[in-house]
Amino acid sequence: MQWYFVAGLLTILTSSQGILTSLSQTNGKYMYDYATVPFLAEVFKLVVSSVLLWRESRIKPSMRMTTDWTSIRLYPIPSIIYLIHNNVQFATLIYVDTSTYQIMGNLKIVTTGILFRLFLRRRLSNLQWMAIILLAIGTTTSQVKGCGEASCDSLFSAPIQGYLLGILSACLSALAGVYTEFLMKKNNDSFYWQNVQLYTFGAIFNMGRLILDDFRIGFEKGPWWQRLFNGYNTTTWMVVLNLGSTGLLVSWLMKYADNIVKVYSTSMAMLLTTVLSVYLFTFKPSLQLFLGIIICMMSLHMYFAPPNMLVDLPPAVLKAPPDSLKEISVEERTNS
Amino acid sequence: MQWYFVAGLLTILTSSQGILTSLSQTNGKYMYDYATVPFLAEVFKLVVSSVLLWRESRIKPSMRMTTDWTSIRLYPIPSIIYLIHNNVQFATLIYVDTSTYQIMGNLKIVTTGILFRLFLRRRLSNLQWMAIILLAIGTTTSQVKGCGEASCDSLFSAPIQGYLLGILSACLSALAGVYTEFLMKKNNDSFYWQNVQLYTFGAIFNMGRLILDDFRIGFEKGPWWQRLFNGYNTTTWMVVLNLGSTGLLVSWLMKYADNIVKVYSTSMAMLLTTVLSVYLFTFKPSLQLFLGIIICMMSLHMYFAPPNMLVDLPPAVLKAPPDSLKEISVEERTNS
Repeated sequence: MQWYFVAGLLTILTSSQGILTSLSQTNGKYMYDYATVPFLAEVFKLVVSSVLLWRESRIKPSMRMTTDWTSIRLYPIPSIIYLIHNNVQFATLIYVDTSTYQIMGNLKIVTTGILFRLFLRRRLSNLQWMAIILLAIGTTTSQVKGCGEASCDSLFSAPIQGYLLGILSACLSALAGVYTEFLMKKNNDSFYWQNVQLYTFGAIFNMGRLILDDFRIGFEKGPWWQRLFNGYNTTTWMVVLNLGSTGLLVSWLMKYADNIVKVYSTSMAMLLTTVLSVYLFTFKPSLQLFLGIIICMMSLHMYFAPPNMLVDLPPAVLKAPPDSLKEISVEERTNS
Repeated sequence: MQWYFVAGLLTILTSSQGILTSLSQTNGKYMYDYATVPFLAEVFKLVVSSVLLWRESRIKPSMRMTTDWTSIRLYPIPSIIYLIHNNVQFATLIYVDTSTYQIMGNLKIVTTGILFRLFLRRRLSNLQWMAIILLAIGTTTSQVKGCGEASCDSLFSAPIQGYLLGILSACLSALAGVYTEFLMKKNNDSFYWQNVQLYTFGAIFNMGRLILDDFRIGFEKGPWWQRLFNGYNTTTWMVVLNLGSTGLLVSWLMKYADNIVKVYSTSMAMLLTTVLSVYLFTFKPSLQLFLGIIICMMSLHMYFAPPNMLVDLPPAVLKAPPDSLKEISVEERTNS
């Protein structure tokens, strides 16, 4: 399976997620408890991965499965980082409004590049760094609202804590991604076995959240398992399956491609969602959306196109044997 | 003289132009006829170039001066193109509002790249094309106003004639630049002699405009030479000298660098003016200005940085003798 096929599929599913979630409302209201969705998605991923692991164990006896506690104990870490991240996110929103929060969310693209370089020691060319910064600028541009004389006061007037928490949030989100990539690549364990470990902890942490919600609202709506399928309609189930499938694709990219591919995939999804909203929800397109899309497309090309397609190489290169000029694929880059 | 020094100076002078023009008002009004400014600037350039030509003829007897009519008759062409351009500009503003007009003005960057390729047959790498498009996007981004919920209806709702005239205007402006570059580079004539020819026709065409204005307003304010220094203050004179100096620098760039260098120079000037306005006129900075500046800086680096600074060259290149990797300067590029 080629990484760009998986990345494209991830883009489509991620952008469907927002639209499906909107469509899952009944009369403009969520009739179900949204917190049950990620839990069920984790369970779905766990079931799919378990079945595939069982099948793999039968057809490929040589597959590797590290069952040491020293290895297994690393798998809850991404869930723990996300847990901290969610709380930081909550704290950030005390200080800044949602549109400032959304704009700051684009910082995640840059922090992912930085942590990718620092922790995974992956080298990026100057042009690739520029492409990453441009991607963040492109997504930000597309999110800037309106065109009138109204100023962006709210963007610049939040208390300093708001910005610091926003930066912390971007770092935590990047850290979770980079750590997952580290986990998936650290040995040749079966992909499905790694998934089973990740999603078992994922399901436990999400269940923990539902239990906590029970205590927080004083069991007003009964224990969490009674709320589980309450108010679910077909679209809600599609939201669950879609979220689960998205997770499986991200997992695959973490093992066989990398975090930057994932970041491009989800950024493109954000743009695609906005474009689809223009048609589906009669959302008004802005000049900024158009500019943002062009910027992101250029960034994509700058990051992934082989150097000889981008620049005129010095004459010495053109005389070199053609083999030495061949495109360096993501797989080769990530394995080096 | 290095081209980047001249380009930097051009950026500073061009951005001073808007600010000086604002400062030349008395009590928020222009007390002088603005149409006299470009005429006097042409005269200033003509005088400076004539003096320098005379000096050159004394110290360098080998200098070339083509005085054939077949050569001289090409020099009014840029003035003629600008004349048509000004009228198209006027017609465009009948169909679109000024902010749409300003946004469309950025198209000039892209049309300059295209005519530069087509008429001067200069090759650009894919990355340089992307840099040119990004420059146009960056300047456009910085000009998008506001941040509120107001939509950009006026941008998308002008009649089709408005957009077509805007495109024509961008093509004419680019054509004038590209044609001037062709004139300046077509032979080894003395730079000052070429200038004398250009500015003689420039002065004549600008005088023609003043005379036309006389007839248009029915000599209400007397003939043009009486209006010439009317209401001029020190700042107005600085506006004239500044505009003249800008013209001389552009001429130099056309001969010794190229149109793309000029386009970068004036685009950077536009951003510099906006930044200076924040300090001088308490203009409110927007997120878009900040994003636009970063985009333009990246574009600058992408266009001018040597390839080996941008991408990781394939191993074959690194083994090549270091000479073959040296930076290709603008002068070499333009002479090839």
